[in-house]
Amino acid sequence: MFLSAGKSSLRAQLRTPYSPISRMLTSHAVIFSSHGEPKDVLKTHTYEIDETKLGANEIVLKTLGAPINPSDINQVQGVYPSQPEKTTALGTSEPSAVGGNEGLFEITHVGSGVKEFQVGDWAIPTSVNFGTWRSYALCDAEKMMKVPNPDQSKAEGKKQGLSINQGATLSVNPLTAYLMLTHYVKLTPGKDWFIQNGGNSAVGKFASQIAKLLGFNSLSVVRDRSEIEDLKKDLKEVCGATQVITEEQNNSKEFGPQVKQWLKESGGEIKLALNCVGGKSSAGVARKLAPNGLMLTYGGMSFQPVTLPTSLHIFKNITSAGFWVTELLKSDPNLKRETVDRIVDWYTNGELLDAPSHENVWGNEDLAKVVISGVENSKSGKQLVKF
Amino acid sequence: MFLSAGKSSLRAQLRTPYSPISRMLTSHAVIFSSHGEPKDVLKTHTYEIDETKLGANEIVLKTLGAPINPSDINQVQGVYPSQPEKTTALGTSEPSAVGGNEGLFEITHVGSGVKEFQVGDWAIPTSVNFGTWRSYALCDAEKMMKVPNPDQSKAEGKKQGLSINQGATLSVNPLTAYLMLTHYVKLTPGKDWFIQNGGNSAVGKFASQIAKLLGFNSLSVVRDRSEIEDLKKDLKEVCGATQVITEEQNNSKEFGPQVKQWLKESGGEIKLALNCVGGKSSAGVARKLAPNGLMLTYGGMSFQPVTLPTSLHIFKNITSAGFWVTELLKSDPNLKRETVDRIVDWYTNGELLDAPSHENVWGNEDLAKVVISGVENSKSGKQLVKF
Repeated sequence: MFLSAGKSSLRAQLRTPYSPISRMLTSHAVIFSSHGEPKDVLKTHTYEIDETKLGANEIVLKTLGAPINPSDINQVQGVYPSQPEKTTALGTSEPSAVGGNEGLFEITHVGSGVKEFQVGDWAIPTSVNFGTWRSYALCDAEKMMKVPNPDQSKAEGKKQGLSINQGATLSVNPLTAYLMLTHYVKLTPGKDWFIQNGGNSAVGKFASQIAKLLGFNSLSVVRDRSEIEDLKKDLKEVCGATQVITEEQNNSKEFGPQVKQWLKESGGEIKLALNCVGGKSSAGVARKLAPNGLMLTYGGMSFQPVTLPTSLHIFKNITSAGFWVTELLKSDPNLKRETVDRIVDWYTNGELLDAPSHENVWGNEDLAKVVISGVENSKSGKQLVKF
Repeated sequence: MFLSAGKSSLRAQLRTPYSPISRMLTSHAVIFSSHGEPKDVLKTHTYEIDETKLGANEIVLKTLGAPINPSDINQVQGVYPSQPEKTTALGTSEPSAVGGNEGLFEITHVGSGVKEFQVGDWAIPTSVNFGTWRSYALCDAEKMMKVPNPDQSKAEGKKQGLSINQGATLSVNPLTAYLMLTHYVKLTPGKDWFIQNGGNSAVGKFASQIAKLLGFNSLSVVRDRSEIEDLKKDLKEVCGATQVITEEQNNSKEFGPQVKQWLKESGGEIKLALNCVGGKSSAGVARKLAPNGLMLTYGGMSFQPVTLPTSLHIFKNITSAGFWVTELLKSDPNLKRETVDRIVDWYTNGELLDAPSHENVWGNEDLAKVVISGVENSKSGKQLVKF
């Protein structure tokens, strides 16, 4: 029944912990104590949270949703540079960590000294490695950052509340797109451009949408395909991309004058390139940069290294740098707060579309199995575990 | 006789223009009016300079020496992005430019309003595209920057005067090495390191020497060769390189711990990489950088693009940028003055060795032929035209 639950019964389910009768909560957590393929190393660990014994600064959270990101999988595999600490704090026999980094939570209990949260508030983790693949969590209030729940957004007069998918996938893709567009190069609204490869990727679509909201022009490069004209149309009409071209067009001398014409009409320059592909494609987008331009690399989908003609470095003063939202925000928590607020505003004003996820709804089965199934389906699209 | 002239007769020759009898000077200039191979497009143009008709801010220069740099050749070929303006100002039938960018000059006459120069002073061009392949030149005083002549260095108590080779090759290689080491990343003397490929190149040797003078550690990567141990010894003993390794060692996992041991002993990190090779070698030096390190590319001897593993950008926050001394100093003339003074100090204190050049001494033959012969020999080593 829960699998097909409508919105109202789901909300009722979420509110169960408010009941004054239940004081002990059982959390189901997907943990790993060693690294390997998720299906081999992920296990469900259950542990009790006693709501009557909260420390003054502690809060209890019910998980609403948590995505399965490629970086979460790499973390389990042990091939990701950022790793959660493995401890026995949750009563595991071996030091273990809870998987997952992004998630949306509802506060169900607050300690006596907690000022920043009330029961019913929604929150996302302040930082990475919180361990979001679990049904409940107990933590210090400072580990969480408030985002408005639908009632609060309504009270503020917003068009709509955050969806669980929007809240649960707030920290990585939209923040990556927004910060790459705003934190490094000053683009002049109404004039300047950025170019990106992987224009049809999740971050690429956010970048096009956010650029439009900020008034920047975008030139999205995508791989050629049979339905290319439909894709171009979609990226322009739905995501607000200014222009969409194929990799072949981007590398073609014959097509160059068309791009120059677009730039001329705008009165601006391509000052920023976003690269999530690498190899020849990275050289292609870097070549379109104006002198002194910056290329930011945030992914390497081709598994080829970033490649830059020497002359672009020396004679055009092109700089190539990396972008990793985790590291940037670790050193600047205020920046995360500001950026999250900005994205939430756009979502609740109905100005920004999220990337849809396939929902893996957890009922009463083994939670690890739900996550492992999500991992296995993750090549066919973004996966969200909904609690 | 001039070809084998000793130091004193050479100085006498240089002082000829001081003679009060001669007021008209004939300058021999190597010009090009179109681009192509130097042997096809370089010609000698002679023109007269009337010393009695100097503008108030003008000076007359006698050229002492001018090198033939690879970039000078590329400029003649038309494949270099910085180009001198072609004009008919020197009385040529077609708009033409004088070749050569570096050179050392002696002031032979000064206009009535010139304060910064006296007859007998030595000078180098303030900027590029002056056209240094000519025996005499007339220009505004601001086009030249004073450097001490040997008498002035002696009077200042310096160990030695600048040699003509040192003065004529001051603006590119030593400035490139010094500015790359000091202008971007703060290396802590006595601790921190830079790594460079092309450790045996002209700039590479300057970088090792200057790093030693500044107290920085250097790790020079060179190509393997039969006399590799002699080369390592030379680079350490003569140029002051801290450590010298081969490309194979730099890319070897087995050799990695040795580098880590050197770093541990120094208490420092590799914060800067200098790349003049590109391709696999650029990835190799970038991999040795500490997190947040910078790679500066100033050449591409392998003709391969700069290559950087994506993970270095994203997870180690390595930045890859270009270095072009021409562009940097164009925007900051004071920096050129300071840097030139620093290099001249080291030269005249006997603390810095210049890269020896093969001297092409001009007697009375066609000057273009001397330059063309230098161009043809430039693959076997640096060439200087001595006047």
